[in-house]
Amino acid sequence: MNFAPLKNDRFLRALRRQPVDATPVWIMRQAGRYLPEYRATRARAGSFLALAKTPELACEVTLQPLDRFDLDAAILFSDILTVPDAMGLGLYFADGEGPKFERPIRSEADVNRLAVPDMASELGYVMDAVTLIRRELQGRVPLIGFSGSPWTLACYMVEGGGSENFSRIKAMALNSPQVLHKLLAVTTDAVIAYLAAQRAAGAQALQVFDTWGGVLSPRLYREFSLHYMARIAAELDRGTDEQNTPLILFGKGNAAYLEALAATGTEAVGVDWLVDLGEARARTRGCVALQGNLDPVTLYAEPETIRTEVAATLDSYGHGPGHVFNLGHGVSPDMNPDHVRVLVDAVHEYSSNKI
Amino acid sequence: MNFAPLKNDRFLRALRRQPVDATPVWIMRQAGRYLPEYRATRARAGSFLALAKTPELACEVTLQPLDRFDLDAAILFSDILTVPDAMGLGLYFADGEGPKFERPIRSEADVNRLAVPDMASELGYVMDAVTLIRRELQGRVPLIGFSGSPWTLACYMVEGGGSENFSRIKAMALNSPQVLHKLLAVTTDAVIAYLAAQRAAGAQALQVFDTWGGVLSPRLYREFSLHYMARIAAELDRGTDEQNTPLILFGKGNAAYLEALAATGTEAVGVDWLVDLGEARARTRGCVALQGNLDPVTLYAEPETIRTEVAATLDSYGHGPGHVFNLGHGVSPDMNPDHVRVLVDAVHEYSSNKI
Repeated sequence: MNFAPLKNDRFLRALRRQPVDATPVWIMRQAGRYLPEYRATRARAGSFLALAKTPELACEVTLQPLDRFDLDAAILFSDILTVPDAMGLGLYFADGEGPKFERPIRSEADVNRLAVPDMASELGYVMDAVTLIRRELQGRVPLIGFSGSPWTLACYMVEGGGSENFSRIKAMALNSPQVLHKLLAVTTDAVIAYLAAQRAAGAQALQVFDTWGGVLSPRLYREFSLHYMARIAAELDRGTDEQNTPLILFGKGNAAYLEALAATGTEAVGVDWLVDLGEARARTRGCVALQGNLDPVTLYAEPETIRTEVAATLDSYGHGPGHVFNLGHGVSPDMNPDHVRVLVDAVHEYSSNKI
Repeated sequence: MNFAPLKNDRFLRALRRQPVDATPVWIMRQAGRYLPEYRATRARAGSFLALAKTPELACEVTLQPLDRFDLDAAILFSDILTVPDAMGLGLYFADGEGPKFERPIRSEADVNRLAVPDMASELGYVMDAVTLIRRELQGRVPLIGFSGSPWTLACYMVEGGGSENFSRIKAMALNSPQVLHKLLAVTTDAVIAYLAAQRAAGAQALQVFDTWGGVLSPRLYREFSLHYMARIAAELDRGTDEQNTPLILFGKGNAAYLEALAATGTEAVGVDWLVDLGEARARTRGCVALQGNLDPVTLYAEPETIRTEVAATLDSYGHGPGHVFNLGHGVSPDMNPDHVRVLVDAVHEYSSNKI
């Protein structure tokens, strides 16, 4: 495909640990309910799923935050649960509740029925959105594609939706580990195919969200979460050299595992706010770029406080390349868009003066 | 006061890092809704607060799990929010919801009105319960008193109840740190007086629950949570030598701070399931006892699996003194009491064969 040349490559350069003129910044859930223009498009779409499954609308909301803020990357508007949905679990959103599956995975027989979905026929709407967004971006900033991690997807697949304590999947991990491994293996195959298809459709970087790895004890984390992210890092073709498509492994509660995550061969690790970036950098010894990690709640503070905290985060990373600024988790619906602007501008201002 | 001599001192010996014949075990929330006899007493009391505020009923439910299981310690049945309640915030429980305060702390003026409550007049019902339980125990096992940590109490005081993202208190920490420090200082004074009064009333060990320290970034954790727990460890009189009243600092999400917690001078640190006990032990260099840390969700697994996981937890601690077995967090209302019995017996059986 022939896309416009990239005008702002700060984000990709930082992921490749090359020098930049200012620290690049994007924000998890930057296209979302905190923006009135998002809420308007969402109302027109009729439902969240209609929004996510209509490429033109997904493209529209993906671009909205870029028109407001000086962001250095766009991220595909979609949901991590498109993959299990395409595997036949029947994703739906009950009013005022989180995502649910009509047919959750409760037995080995359920697992045996799963297969890697055909990307073109089952998830073509995602690939169409990626290509459309990439074209509409006209090279302004790079486009990030993404997937849930195998463990995180399996959490929703087994629990049937969100969970307070993950009792079903943890019981499966303990009572029937081989069944869970079978589920994670096919899900990992699907995730790799999904990310490869997004790359082929135009995604210029790829992020894996391991939202729920941090609920596991260290032994179970290594066996059921880390192992499958390492498979993605090892098996996903990302090209070579200067023109590669960098992979970011983000995890809530991954602070204890940064050395192991860096050793997977991923290009970057995304961290939440529970670790100091300087410590994360020392422990990963410059083998990966780091993405993060301001506590999202900081956006409820006064603008002057936000600026101070942005500077503290940049200082905690220190000098030199390899840092992508982000929140440690997503922006919330009740946050003030003006505060997001303060954050984005403060990242560029403070870091360009420092560099 | 003249209490019966202690018949089972495993728990206190382990906290003092002395040899034991089997690893002692108790379980956070061991007196609670998962027990039918608790639900019967709770129904008789009419409300949770009536149960907690009536010494005879609090004593009754405290002893219930000891009649079922071979536990090595009793823990006062109470609520961490008795202290802010006594400080005038008006604790109540809305139907089907968590705890709430009628008069949360929202301004510096609110903070300025706070004072350390008089233990005898405002919290006498707690001290009466401690003395009654200690007498009724007749030396079977030691009695643990407890308090919420200053930071955790402040979370409820500022948020007005439970919180998803702690936006109010974090905004206070960032925008008005000196106001929050004033709140934490008076709350710490109250906690120290409260624990001292429980010790005087008969408590033989004292645990501080820092349930919400783990939501803070490292810098804020040190400033707003750790600092005040260190004050408790430094200022709370616990006696000397062999007859001391050991202090346990428990925290969810405290894995990154074990060295710092051990350096406070506390006798023991309680950890959740997100750290390997062997690693925790190496990092605290035998300066403290360790309490924990099986993932509570393990109780949903099969009995044979529970036994395997108990053995793995004991093995992760390794040989030698200084381990109190516990869950990494409390038992849940829908857990099977028979599985708790499996756990308790497995701890004693496996550890006594190992020792």
